[in-house]
Amino acid sequence: MLKIALDLRGSEQSPLPEIEGLSLFLQANKDTIIYAFGIEEDYFLIKKLLKKYPKRLKFFVAQTYITMKDNPLKVIKDKKNSTIHFAMRSISKWGLDGILSCGNTGAIITLAVMFLKLLPTLRRPFLIKELPAKNGKKVVLLDIGANPSLLPKDYLKMAVVGKIYAKHLFNIDNPKIGLLNIGEEEYKGTPLIKEAYQILKESNLNFSGNIEGNHLWEGKVDVALCDGFTGNILLKSSEALASLLIDKLKILLKNNFMFKLFYSLSKKSFKKLVNSFNYNNYGGALLIGIKGYCLIGHG
Amino acid sequence: MLKIALDLRGSEQSPLPEIEGLSLFLQANKDTIIYAFGIEEDYFLIKKLLKKYPKRLKFFVAQTYITMKDNPLKVIKDKKNSTIHFAMRSISKWGLDGILSCGNTGAIITLAVMFLKLLPTLRRPFLIKELPAKNGKKVVLLDIGANPSLLPKDYLKMAVVGKIYAKHLFNIDNPKIGLLNIGEEEYKGTPLIKEAYQILKESNLNFSGNIEGNHLWEGKVDVALCDGFTGNILLKSSEALASLLIDKLKILLKNNFMFKLFYSLSKKSFKKLVNSFNYNNYGGALLIGIKGYCLIGHG
Repeated sequence: MLKIALDLRGSEQSPLPEIEGLSLFLQANKDTIIYAFGIEEDYFLIKKLLKKYPKRLKFFVAQTYITMKDNPLKVIKDKKNSTIHFAMRSISKWGLDGILSCGNTGAIITLAVMFLKLLPTLRRPFLIKELPAKNGKKVVLLDIGANPSLLPKDYLKMAVVGKIYAKHLFNIDNPKIGLLNIGEEEYKGTPLIKEAYQILKESNLNFSGNIEGNHLWEGKVDVALCDGFTGNILLKSSEALASLLIDKLKILLKNNFMFKLFYSLSKKSFKKLVNSFNYNNYGGALLIGIKGYCLIGHG
Repeated sequence: MLKIALDLRGSEQSPLPEIEGLSLFLQANKDTIIYAFGIEEDYFLIKKLLKKYPKRLKFFVAQTYITMKDNPLKVIKDKKNSTIHFAMRSISKWGLDGILSCGNTGAIITLAVMFLKLLPTLRRPFLIKELPAKNGKKVVLLDIGANPSLLPKDYLKMAVVGKIYAKHLFNIDNPKIGLLNIGEEEYKGTPLIKEAYQILKESNLNFSGNIEGNHLWEGKVDVALCDGFTGNILLKSSEALASLLIDKLKILLKNNFMFKLFYSLSKKSFKKLVNSFNYNNYGGALLIGIKGYCLIGHG
């Protein structure tokens, strides 16, 4: 039995999306115990589920919760009675396996480092995300927001973490590592990136050198490295661009009188295409480098 | 009559794409004189055009050219006899209006600053690009690669330059300026970005605060600011993502037996959609902040 903590007060519309997801999860998955952390009023919303799954759902009451507007560094001290704080504390205390929150990324990361502890040799954890590339390939992008800026040596740690991820989740023996940059040539980029390049080049990793933004979607490498500032903007932009394109396509199809016929005949594959670029289907981002599973969902 | 210098030896496949473009341009446009700069062997390829347009096309021979692999800082000294060097020198000498090259961005920018000179108060020029946003809106993104890193005060200069662009090219009285960041809150981002935020906030510009990657395509602002590292990766990634999505769509349509009928009935609007996301149709990026027009095309 896996034991997972769930922050009911994470997302901007919380707790309803969290409770809806929880209900679907408990229905589909029978070998996990969920430790849900909410505030008092959430009890009335979760009551039915607690009765339905008495052995697989537990509910804990915190006094407050952390919002998206809260400054992560401040709430660590000021909101010790928040849902996420309570959940994080409980992981080591009760031997839980991991945590899911759709809340304030900065606060979650700070608390994860504080309570779950970093893996040996790491200075910081990283946020990681799988992206769909050309020809059914996949690429792991990190960091996508845990660290707005990095030190050159952090790139080597990221590469190792990304390699392990790609090796086990993509079943690739020696994953290709690429450094996101403004050009492929060794002399390109900021001084910091050039230093990171040299460190990666001298490592025993399968380093493919610099890759450009387009190479990310072309599946040129299995693991793409960047700082959290670039990665976060890149990811959010990609999500919105894909959805903008699909919206435009839908309008185009709707304005065409052949649409209904066409759509009814290709509904399944059309939906598959749309879904492959709907990032909400890719779940949250995994915080990697800490002792435990920490998944941060879309807020 | 506009006088424009054209570097025939810029792109990776040069000079053929340049000469093809030149031929199309001379056919469509009758009030511009093109000063084409190539190497000796290009004469045989351009001969026909020179005979066809004796008054509107001039050809100049340089001894060498700068490649994409060349280090910009080195070639400034070492390749003084290159096409782009010769072209840049000629602008002020012969009173030309501008230059187009699809070559080494770093080299072009360095030479443009050297020969065309910066506008007053600027420390660096910026590369600017128009992007299509939601509901037919447009957004100007800068910097997209002229400056891998910036100083906080550069963001104010970028904002002013972007404002002027949006005001005149989008016909917007007081364009909205946004700072690309990993979150909307004032405390988000790197120390440098936070400093830039304060400078913009205290300016008399129409500053909308931080915007996230998704806001770029949602048309939330008219001008989006970022460093050239982020902007370059973002732009190249967006181009590739859009083309990946369209490729997937084409495969989907081709595998559907209704495709031909559907396509024949909506060919025009489908092509329009595809083209609106085909960045090759948006021409090059404009180098802004120098005294003269400098357009850098896709290499």
